[in-house]
Amino acid sequence: MQELDLKFPTCPVRNVLARFSDKWSLLVLVCILQNGKMRYTEIRRSIPDISQKMLSSTLKHLEEDNLLVREAYAEIPPRVEYSLTETGESLMLAMRMLLDWSLQHFQEVTQ
Amino acid sequence: MQELDLKFPTCPVRNVLARFSDKWSLLVLVCILQNGKMRYTEIRRSIPDISQKMLSSTLKHLEEDNLLVREAYAEIPPRVEYSLTETGESLMLAMRMLLDWSLQHFQEVTQ
Repeated sequence: MQELDLKFPTCPVRNVLARFSDKWSLLVLVCILQNGKMRYTEIRRSIPDISQKMLSSTLKHLEEDNLLVREAYAEIPPRVEYSLTETGESLMLAMRMLLDWSLQHFQEVTQ
Repeated sequence: MQELDLKFPTCPVRNVLARFSDKWSLLVLVCILQNGKMRYTEIRRSIPDISQKMLSSTLKHLEEDNLLVREAYAEIPPRVEYSLTETGESLMLAMRMLLDWSLQHFQEVTQ
């Protein structure tokens, strides 16, 4: 693995990883990975303890970071759905090993 | 990938990933991955903007989570070094894809 420069603005941990490695971003990304296209209310049902404000801001910044796409359908009532972009899908592929690791080492880390 | 239950205390995102996915934990883990055994002052020099209090609490919880080991040598002055445990090393292997992904998608996510 290439040596990472942890100090400067080119650090991938500070500038990329830290943008989506908070608990709520991870939960929203995994939720949409597992369920495919989802509506706002469906996501809230899957993550019942996330506040409306936190879910809205999390969806917004994941969209701005090009990891999620928001599709609005001109219907009455209006329908809005969120899904992973290609970049988001490639992120979740890279994340898969970490998710599997977390399952395998659940006891060791949480005891 | 096994379907993850995101709601309950068995959720690996909430109970495992979220314990070390904050910026400071990630920076400390990558720093020790890249440099091997390190002293407290050496880590602080590699991550100059981390406060003393934050570094101490980050090292403490990574040790409690069985990801780092702290070795104290009975010398004068006392010498203390931190390194990855076996569990920590296996985590960083699983993290490697994500770090590479962050380097490759730096522009896309940060533009």
